[in-house]
Amino acid sequence: MLPVVVVHGGAGHIPKERSERSTSGVRSAAQSAYAVLKRGGSSMDAVVDAVMLLENNPSFNAGCGSVLNIKGEVEMDALVMDGKTLSSGAVSAVRNIANPIQLARLVMEKTSHACLTAEGASQFAHFMGIPEVPQESLITEYSRMRWKKNLEPDANPVECQMGKMGTVGAVAVDTDGNVACATSTGGLLNKMEGRVGDTPCIGQSPEAASDLGLAHMKSRVGGLGGVVTVDPQGNWAARFSSRQMAWAAAQKDTLHYGLYTGENFTQIMEDTH
Amino acid sequence: MLPVVVVHGGAGHIPKERSERSTSGVRSAAQSAYAVLKRGGSSMDAVVDAVMLLENNPSFNAGCGSVLNIKGEVEMDALVMDGKTLSSGAVSAVRNIANPIQLARLVMEKTSHACLTAEGASQFAHFMGIPEVPQESLITEYSRMRWKKNLEPDANPVECQMGKMGTVGAVAVDTDGNVACATSTGGLLNKMEGRVGDTPCIGQSPEAASDLGLAHMKSRVGGLGGVVTVDPQGNWAARFSSRQMAWAAAQKDTLHYGLYTGENFTQIMEDTH
Repeated sequence: MLPVVVVHGGAGHIPKERSERSTSGVRSAAQSAYAVLKRGGSSMDAVVDAVMLLENNPSFNAGCGSVLNIKGEVEMDALVMDGKTLSSGAVSAVRNIANPIQLARLVMEKTSHACLTAEGASQFAHFMGIPEVPQESLITEYSRMRWKKNLEPDANPVECQMGKMGTVGAVAVDTDGNVACATSTGGLLNKMEGRVGDTPCIGQSPEAASDLGLAHMKSRVGGLGGVVTVDPQGNWAARFSSRQMAWAAAQKDTLHYGLYTGENFTQIMEDTH
Repeated sequence: MLPVVVVHGGAGHIPKERSERSTSGVRSAAQSAYAVLKRGGSSMDAVVDAVMLLENNPSFNAGCGSVLNIKGEVEMDALVMDGKTLSSGAVSAVRNIANPIQLARLVMEKTSHACLTAEGASQFAHFMGIPEVPQESLITEYSRMRWKKNLEPDANPVECQMGKMGTVGAVAVDTDGNVACATSTGGLLNKMEGRVGDTPCIGQSPEAASDLGLAHMKSRVGGLGGVVTVDPQGNWAARFSSRQMAWAAAQKDTLHYGLYTGENFTQIMEDTH
């Protein structure tokens, strides 16, 4: 069953003209991360590799392609967690870097803290030698268009939010049986400056935790979302209560990927290496 | 059994010369919050009242009296949660305000977000009319002395950390049976700029959750801490795995308070109104 990696591109409504790019994006990320695992890389190497590819892909709401805050700026959140040691690292409201997930990993590995935020996170990035990138390089035409549209007097903020996908993420188990996960996001469209999103809660078995989490979110706050999980034996699952979610999983030299829509899975595809 | 409020002053080592001030501080906070509940205030009103008193009390690591970061500055984190609606509000790495808990409550009540950080949190405070206070007003002689001591070449950072208490907190149930909680902290002594601490995980029953949480923290990461809980029936508990924790609880017109040290509770006191 090992190694295995599962990747998702964020739950939410995916416009038809963008669904192919989403699916191919998660497919490439799973493929690349799986190659990392096959050549003996750790699950942490794999999930960071996958999420970096999603951050660099303008089709996703993370890194380049992040949604803009109310001022038209990019502020990003990211987190990694290592199942072996339970150590984790995160950054919130970070600006002007291409790969927040890389910085989250450095917070875990190089500091005694679990999360650095805003200006403090930027200072740490500088100290670690991570290049500062101009904000413009993270902003796509599409995200600027959506930001402007949401500022129009007759804009419906709730509708606008639904048109954009959320956090991207990856989970993996390496050949040593160690689990790791990574998530990254630009957050909510037209969010207030300094807004920090939900941080993960660690609980029971992966399956029980995701079902419980989704059911709880739906029943108590009417929220919809998606989760990808892998247990140390390599059993994986992608579950969602939202409208759509692009996902991809690599295991036993086979790539599964697809776009969840409605009650049934559609477009499940397999590539054998 | 209702109403009830339980307050703690942060788990950790409490120097002997400071233990009386800690105990009297949590006692006053529980007393004041209990009066809020008795005159029909909500559990949210009560916990914010209690935590504001602890923030204003220089004996605790929250608000005035917060530990200093590596640069000698005060950056604070705070969170409120309403058990009735499951809504929550938080601020992280916020500066130059006297009562971060008040701002956390405003994040919950006045924004669509759950957390605002750093400069964005300051802007929101300004917008809400919360007065900016000079940093100096939050810094005590004691915290500056400890900061300097930790910068000395022969300082032992781990030992220094152990000398300071952590997050303060309060939980309450009002006469309508609604639970609320509030926590506030200056974080870790000599932390990096922008460091954000652990955010709460919401789980099972209060007792099971606190036992599980403490056991898990101890077994997996060797961490020690303390928890105060109240269930909607008004059953309360204060548990800890750390060296010491000052706590106070008010219920049935009686105030219980004390200082936990070692395996057994010591100094449990009762005041009847």
